Amino acid sequence: MNYPKSIRNLIECFKKLPGVGEKTAERLALSVINFDENVIELFSSSIKDVKYKIKKCSICNNLTEEDTCDICRDESRDSSVLCVVEEAKNSILFEKMGSFKGRYHVLNGLISPLDGIGPDDINLDKLVSRVESEGVKEVILALKPSIEGETTSLYISKMLSGKGVKVSKIAQGIPMGADMEYIDILTLEMALEDRKEISN
Amino acid sequence: MNYPKSIRNLIECFKKLPGVGEKTAERLALSVINFDENVIELFSSSIKDVKYKIKKCSICNNLTEEDTCDICRDESRDSSVLCVVEEAKNSILFEKMGSFKGRYHVLNGLISPLDGIGPDDINLDKLVSRVESEGVKEVILALKPSIEGETTSLYISKMLSGKGVKVSKIAQGIPMGADMEYIDILTLEMALEDRKEISN
Repeated sequence: MNYPKSIRNLIECFKKLPGVGEKTAERLALSVINFDENVIELFSSSIKDVKYKIKKCSICNNLTEEDTCDICRDESRDSSVLCVVEEAKNSILFEKMGSFKGRYHVLNGLISPLDGIGPDDINLDKLVSRVESEGVKEVILALKPSIEGETTSLYISKMLSGKGVKVSKIAQGIPMGADMEYIDILTLEMALEDRKEISN
Repeated sequence: MNYPKSIRNLIECFKKLPGVGEKTAERLALSVINFDENVIELFSSSIKDVKYKIKKCSICNNLTEEDTCDICRDESRDSSVLCVVEEAKNSILFEKMGSFKGRYHVLNGLISPLDGIGPDDINLDKLVSRVESEGVKEVILALKPSIEGETTSLYISKMLSGKGVKVSKIAQGIPMGADMEYIDILTLEMALEDRKEISN
């Protein structure tokens, strides 16, 4: 004897989510029994909607339910500044910050030779054509500080050299609120190298 | 700007699951985009099924899609032994073990005066009527060793005294594989008190 079929099915589905194992899936599935009916309807339909309605913006590759995303359609955004991010999630983080008024270019991941992901696989050709056609003056690289991130940043900056566009990279250093004794050596090295004069 | 509507809805639904916060809900919702279509269909339908098809067994209160659960319908199970558990999940754990051949009685939680849960709220009256009508010879209490669990065990044993039924409680002591230095004092005290003679 085991759980009834519908619960077993739901447990299997929850197990397909990242970081969810057998025990957690069981707990999650059992909790669904007590959900309100309106939550059940929304949960059930939005799972399908996310799969069937979500597309990639034809301009910047961001997630959208239309042909182009809200930001690409927003005339008030500054089209002379492009922020390059690894995935759609990162552009949302920038938007939560609220102070960036330019546009985005969302890659399909980072260059990673070990995983067989080369420059042709991550939506870089469209970046070049946008820089050439949209009057872009600055490309800000906001990729994570890993080997793949650095490789991709370097590749993009070389790819765009000679095209009359400024390429910058967001600052790397000690994060706010960090305890100095837990900062790793590499971060400290970068923070020291990129030190900023505050008085003279 | 934020995520498209369908993703925002799904994030809100995931956030209603126990132990899932904003960041996790976001990660889970985005992962759904990459699910296969058959998983999407099963996920979407089993959420509804779990809500609308799952009922409580009219005999033992276990989860079932029928009027009575698989175990109560199974004639080969020993109806003279009833194992009392706090919730349906616990009976599944017993079934995974495989060696228990009796039947279950699933409570609706434990007696907890602080939370306003009294003996009348946890399906105890049906336990008494089952003991009186089903030829039960032994009631095994398998409730967790907390104040609520102990209170409930005590209440049940008093409630059944004089009804000609043996009431037992699963053993408390040191769990398998535990490191002695991490055993708490209360557990050690119980384990010492309930020590078992192995040779004489």
